[in-house]
Amino acid sequence: MALFEVLIDIAHLPGVADPAGATVERALPALGYTNVSDVKIAKSIRLTIDAPTAEAAETQVREMCERILANPVIEDYSLRISETTSP
Amino acid sequence: MALFEVLIDIAHLPGVADPAGATVERALPALGYTNVSDVKIAKSIRLTIDAPTAEAAETQVREMCERILANPVIEDYSLRISETTSP
Repeated sequence: MALFEVLIDIAHLPGVADPAGATVERALPALGYTNVSDVKIAKSIRLTIDAPTAEAAETQVREMCERILANPVIEDYSLRISETTSP
Repeated sequence: MALFEVLIDIAHLPGVADPAGATVERALPALGYTNVSDVKIAKSIRLTIDAPTAEAAETQVREMCERILANPVIEDYSLRISETTSP
């Protein structure tokens, strides 16, 4: 078994409203930032998982995303997995 | 001027409580995931910025992070900047 660090990026699916991002985008011009657009606010989750291989870690994390971490109806997720050097 | 896509990852500083992450970590064993630890939930922001150079874009985004996007007292942020191919 080895320890893997996983970074999960959970973003809204295209077409799903992002009120937090829209609010920030509307606030920026008042602060002088008029050259910013397409502000999207999403969630990222970091975790450490003990698994035999990187593939096993990825399979389990995808299952966790579908069941609890993300809402597949409105969210999409991407993973980055790296083996930790110090177990 | 060119368009740059910026991904800002905003995480809690070490030592700052992360109640959402702790709640997920406590919930996972009940779902059968007993091999997961160090769950941290953070925020990520994507935006598009119109700037003369990547350095100018980075300078402005760092200033925006300090002023509005992040709370430097309890949060740290990292940036990834890429020039968009289609302006």
